[in-house]
Amino acid sequence: MSSLTEHPNRITGILTPNITPVDAEGRVDEERLREYVDWLIQRGVDGLYPNGSTGEFVRFTPQERRRIVQVVVDQTAGRVPVLAGAAEANVEETIAACHAYGAMGVRAVAVVAPFYYQLSSDAVHAYFTQIARSVDVDVTLYNIPMFASPIDVETVTRLALEQPRIIGIKDSSGDLPNMLRMMAAIRPQRADFSFLTGWDASLAPMLIAGIDGGTNATSGVVPELTRAIHRSVREGSIDRAMRQQYDLLALFDAMIGLGEFPDGFRAGARARGWNLGDGR
Amino acid sequence: MSSLTEHPNRITGILTPNITPVDAEGRVDEERLREYVDWLIQRGVDGLYPNGSTGEFVRFTPQERRRIVQVVVDQTAGRVPVLAGAAEANVEETIAACHAYGAMGVRAVAVVAPFYYQLSSDAVHAYFTQIARSVDVDVTLYNIPMFASPIDVETVTRLALEQPRIIGIKDSSGDLPNMLRMMAAIRPQRADFSFLTGWDASLAPMLIAGIDGGTNATSGVVPELTRAIHRSVREGSIDRAMRQQYDLLALFDAMIGLGEFPDGFRAGARARGWNLGDGR
Amino acid sequence: MSSLTEHPNRITGILTPNITPVDAEGRVDEERLREYVDWLIQRGVDGLYPNGSTGEFVRFTPQERRRIVQVVVDQTAGRVPVLAGAAEANVEETIAACHAYGAMGVRAVAVVAPFYYQLSSDAVHAYFTQIARSVDVDVTLYNIPMFASPIDVETVTRLALEQPRIIGIKDSSGDLPNMLRMMAAIRPQRADFSFLTGWDASLAPMLIAGIDGGTNATSGVVPELTRAIHRSVREGSIDRAMRQQYDLLALFDAMIGLGEFPDGFRAGARARGWNLGDGR
Amino acid sequence: MSSLTEHPNRITGILTPNITPVDAEGRVDEERLREYVDWLIQRGVDGLYPNGSTGEFVRFTPQERRRIVQVVVDQTAGRVPVLAGAAEANVEETIAACHAYGAMGVRAVAVVAPFYYQLSSDAVHAYFTQIARSVDVDVTLYNIPMFASPIDVETVTRLALEQPRIIGIKDSSGDLPNMLRMMAAIRPQRADFSFLTGWDASLAPMLIAGIDGGTNATSGVVPELTRAIHRSVREGSIDRAMRQQYDLLALFDAMIGLGEFPDGFRAGARARGWNLGDGR
Repeated sequence: MSSLTEHPNRITGILTPNITPVDAEGRVDEERLREYVDWLIQRGVDGLYPNGSTGEFVRFTPQERRRIVQVVVDQTAGRVPVLAGAAEANVEETIAACHAYGAMGVRAVAVVAPFYYQLSSDAVHAYFTQIARSVDVDVTLYNIPMFASPIDVETVTRLALEQPRIIGIKDSSGDLPNMLRMMAAIRPQRADFSFLTGWDASLAPMLIAGIDGGTNATSGVVPELTRAIHRSVREGSIDRAMRQQYDLLALFDAMIGLGEFPDGFRAGARARGWNLGDGR
Repeated sequence: MSSLTEHPNRITGILTPNITPVDAEGRVDEERLREYVDWLIQRGVDGLYPNGSTGEFVRFTPQERRRIVQVVVDQTAGRVPVLAGAAEANVEETIAACHAYGAMGVRAVAVVAPFYYQLSSDAVHAYFTQIARSVDVDVTLYNIPMFASPIDVETVTRLALEQPRIIGIKDSSGDLPNMLRMMAAIRPQRADFSFLTGWDASLAPMLIAGIDGGTNATSGVVPELTRAIHRSVREGSIDRAMRQQYDLLALFDAMIGLGEFPDGFRAGARARGWNLGDGR
Repeated sequence: MSSLTEHPNRITGILTPNITPVDAEGRVDEERLREYVDWLIQRGVDGLYPNGSTGEFVRFTPQERRRIVQVVVDQTAGRVPVLAGAAEANVEETIAACHAYGAMGVRAVAVVAPFYYQLSSDAVHAYFTQIARSVDVDVTLYNIPMFASPIDVETVTRLALEQPRIIGIKDSSGDLPNMLRMMAAIRPQRADFSFLTGWDASLAPMLIAGIDGGTNATSGVVPELTRAIHRSVREGSIDRAMRQQYDLLALFDAMIGLGEFPDGFRAGARARGWNLGDGR
Repeated sequence: MSSLTEHPNRITGILTPNITPVDAEGRVDEERLREYVDWLIQRGVDGLYPNGSTGEFVRFTPQERRRIVQVVVDQTAGRVPVLAGAAEANVEETIAACHAYGAMGVRAVAVVAPFYYQLSSDAVHAYFTQIARSVDVDVTLYNIPMFASPIDVETVTRLALEQPRIIGIKDSSGDLPNMLRMMAAIRPQRADFSFLTGWDASLAPMLIAGIDGGTNATSGVVPELTRAIHRSVREGSIDRAMRQQYDLLALFDAMIGLGEFPDGFRAGARARGWNLGDGR
């Protein structure tokens, strides 16, 4: 596709921001989580992404978040890479979480910009700079302006060119032109930098436009379909990819519109036979 | 591409929302307008679209708007179709403008939703219903939520299925998933309905996703490039289309970021040798 | 109250942005307009404000707007001042309207910032500067960021200090701290500058905070009540003003929530015995 | 003032959402916190509010948040009431924090609506209902739509009328008409319900309009001034209150505009001789 030649270090394909199974008392259901990870890998997902927004990371304690990643890494057992959500209450604790996840053997961590307070671009840049300089694990930026301080195109570009430890962006804004702007600015100088979309509604067009993959909530429900879209685009079957995208869009709209996020995705998983509990 | 089989009645390709040339006193420069129309057609645009946002329609008087369309229709002389912006101060005058432009021989009119007041979806639906029932010319909806009351996906769909006179949508929101939603809902029942984007920053991805064409301000400056993108996609040369899109995006960003819209596009035209004046 | 000593030139009290009566064919009903003006004056409004947002100025033609002001000025016959909405399609025509209304004898014109396009602060400043330098009539700025390009606090302050012809602001944002900021910046140097609110929901608090008056849609329905609030505050009866404000707020919420603006105010007028037609 | 007769149980006056002092290593500086609490009480604040947004509650760990409240309660020693911010990662932990703070002897807890995810009104209602039914301490709602899911007027009203444990609202939206709407709907049935504003820019107008008090970041820097405004309004000295409000507004604008929130308030405290550290 229209990306430059791919680089072997890039994170590619569809990584699942997995729902965190909980039992009737709301505790993390580790057994179910292990079974669910197996199912996702068997259905062809290219990676796991615990502690994402779909995984309701903010509703668990720091200790629970560590345990969730540990279980996913352990169960995955190297079959696919793990991208671990590592955002904590402040920069020091985020760095500590990065260390912990690095030691567990994750492929990379994903760090959302600070939320609650809306930070300026300079403060966002300073935050990620401090993290990148302090950790021994690869870092992906996680931009989700709906929920957290935005990481704008210029800031992503600065960070990509300044910090080799920052190796990709997961962008859930759904802004395709901004993806193009970032790829135009970064790829000529960082062939190893990955561009991943978290916005399922435009997955196929984003992939056709040359991004590397996606971290998509729908892949936790219909991993066969998101995989098929990625493979269709990779093979150059654009028409087929778009037909599949229409199916994905209908499913995504149904699940995103049901109750509070991510309730609809829990309901979707239930329709596939997975009782992952009611969430937090 | 992934659109259903094309329908001969659809408006396709790249139509130029042309800048309105003005002289040093700010009057419409008809001579220059005629020359500019010739140049655009010679450079391969698939249609003209006078009285769009790029044409600053709100800054001209009703009489001037009529004259602008008349000059463009006359000069075009049937070489390419004309899509005439027909929004006036209220529904009665908009209908009168539609009649006038229909009599001049335009292919269709384009009507933006009422602006200044932010209307509800029901009021927007009522507005376009009254127009569609009153006119003898084909109507395209013009959605530009940045500037006017939005025409949401459900309203577009209702209007498309209820009113045969409404034959397309020009969407300048840049929202690709919404384009997919509209195509999914409308195309199975209205094979003649056209989907056009006014957001140049995602022209190629939109075309690849199956829309019919665009009404893009950049086409008034680099008509060769927008034409090339459309032709690349039509031929299935996706990689080439995306490479061209990167060039278009850089030009679009430069022109949209210069002064007040559409000053940057006037500057762009000047760089191509066209002194179209300073605008209103 | 907490304003500095009042200046005799300031526009004070409650001016009614009057609904434009239309007949069954949608034409301006001049006879009804004259009767309505008389009723408003008899009920104690301190001024008339034709061609405001409540008067649906954008839905009438330039010729109709002129005629509306002429009728109001003629019928008012000097009993109360007239503030005439003078915004037209571009700066030249706005200036022409200002000239026309000045010649008719209005106390001042009110000019909204350009709408449809969202202009920068500098462009808004340039627009009003050109008007202020060109006209012989007093000008009030009309800030309504819901509908038009905002005129921010800094721009209002610059214009107030630079242009003696600009003699006030009608602010419909409802932002009370911004009112305080403007009064703090302008009053020490322009004792003649008027601050008027167009946001009925905070009329009494704004008046208590020291503004000069209001241009409030509710005053076209319950002129007795808006007058009473103004008089209560002027007399220092703060508790009474606040009790009256609760009544006004309930009426305002009911009318603003009914149909499309200003339908609810037409319905309110009907409840007072005024059939002003269905609007445009 | 224009409120109904005051009720002895209402929380009134100015409560300080205190900055959390930290040492050079970023640890909570308990000694400094105790000294600062003493100073604030000596300067006349009517209460303390640890773990507010100014206190950067989201940047501390659950354990640190408990300790901060414990220190403030201990040092306050009953001289003024304590309102403790009690929001945690999920509803169960928030309830546990409420229990803990109740046992410490706080006057009430303050709970912000869930943040990061933007919840619907129904989900916000369910969240607070569950808390109110589970705790033995009085609860105030904390509405700050800039940072967290909004608690809209209707939801506040429902909760106030359904849950006796919910005894007030701290509203940081600055929306004065919404305050009036809530007071109109709630006070006739809940004379004990408190209305507090967290938006310093309109403190005096809000108090004049009849609210009970404020939780204002500026009171941590200029407690004399915020106290003076409250006392001026209470005494009916409206002009004086407004003159003081202009002073407060200038200070507030300077501090809110400096760096990232709440950096400017730390700088303000430093100007008063308090080195509270650099924050998290």
